[in-house]
Amino acid sequence: MIKIAILASGRGSNFKSIMEEIRAGRCNAHPVVLITNNPDAPAIDIAKENNIPVEIVNKKDFASREAFDSEIKQILDRYEAGLVVLAGYMLILRGRDLLEAYKNKIINIHPSLLPAFPGVEAQKQAFDHGCKVSGVTIHFVDPGLDSGPIIYQEAVDISDCKTAEETAAKILKTEHRAYAKVIDMFSKGTFTIDGRRAMFTSGKIRL
Amino acid sequence: MIKIAILASGRGSNFKSIMEEIRAGRCNAHPVVLITNNPDAPAIDIAKENNIPVEIVNKKDFASREAFDSEIKQILDRYEAGLVVLAGYMLILRGRDLLEAYKNKIINIHPSLLPAFPGVEAQKQAFDHGCKVSGVTIHFVDPGLDSGPIIYQEAVDISDCKTAEETAAKILKTEHRAYAKVIDMFSKGTFTIDGRRAMFTSGKIRL
Repeated sequence: MIKIAILASGRGSNFKSIMEEIRAGRCNAHPVVLITNNPDAPAIDIAKENNIPVEIVNKKDFASREAFDSEIKQILDRYEAGLVVLAGYMLILRGRDLLEAYKNKIINIHPSLLPAFPGVEAQKQAFDHGCKVSGVTIHFVDPGLDSGPIIYQEAVDISDCKTAEETAAKILKTEHRAYAKVIDMFSKGTFTIDGRRAMFTSGKIRL
Repeated sequence: MIKIAILASGRGSNFKSIMEEIRAGRCNAHPVVLITNNPDAPAIDIAKENNIPVEIVNKKDFASREAFDSEIKQILDRYEAGLVVLAGYMLILRGRDLLEAYKNKIINIHPSLLPAFPGVEAQKQAFDHGCKVSGVTIHFVDPGLDSGPIIYQEAVDISDCKTAEETAAKILKTEHRAYAKVIDMFSKGTFTIDGRRAMFTSGKIRL
């Protein structure tokens, strides 16, 4: 079982689905802490319902982003997190000591097939562009915006979606399943990165 | 049955697959002419084997790209083409009278899920980026590079591809099937474009 830390800023819909998949026995992970920058995040309620410790790290309490991210690193160290799972965390991680200490141990999910449509409202971007296929990307976090090596992608047919909202709802269903599946893979094997290509190299399943 | 003109510069692998799908009864189209800018294009042999007229329009015989594209327009008019199918045509169509006269009647196929990886070597671009999913896009042609409204997209799982060449070969299989399928749709209905979203609005099938 892998110890995971969840970082979330908002409603925590991906956090909630991860908890459901853990309970259903499809994701062999133990959430050890929720870290949030938002004292009002509904994700806090999900943590409390599941007896998961909550650490609030508020940006305004820190003089710099480097100091802010260092605090996050110390919390991750304290809880001995083996994997850091961003679940609607709205800040880019910039602290060099955090990113180096947890290199290839911080993952994020993005509602498009990257490198198409990075940034906010990726589903609306895809809909407005007239795409027939979009999808979900789970990637390692680097200092850029949605730019780290890709771990997993899954296509979603959006050709019959009538609005950007319908597109987002359809993609969200795939997000929920895919994120827990990938977290489970981290409990079963390891990823190696060659250039930008992440390959699952041991364990019983293969992406 | 829809009259199609094929524009090709090279081997014509998509042209060949369209002919195969027509013979197999899966693509209700009649190729009326092959237009090529390359007197040595192997695509010419495919046309000759199928008794399709060949028109060579060589860029060096024209003073400007506008005049060059005007010649293409006149050929299309003469053969009464209902749909213009780019199949490995290596020049961007720039002539305003051509693009206006055949607005939403010129289509191209591109070996990626646009807007990701426009331009040359799209399959290698996707492989080198570490993508797990790429695919095929069929789109209307506008004056930009692979930028017109998207008609059809299909995802291809490239997670197990070991090289850029393997990636290209896997995507090519989908290209061959998809292009004939979309050409067949043009024989059965019409596409309307709302903003950038192309919607199939009549006929018996639906993308």
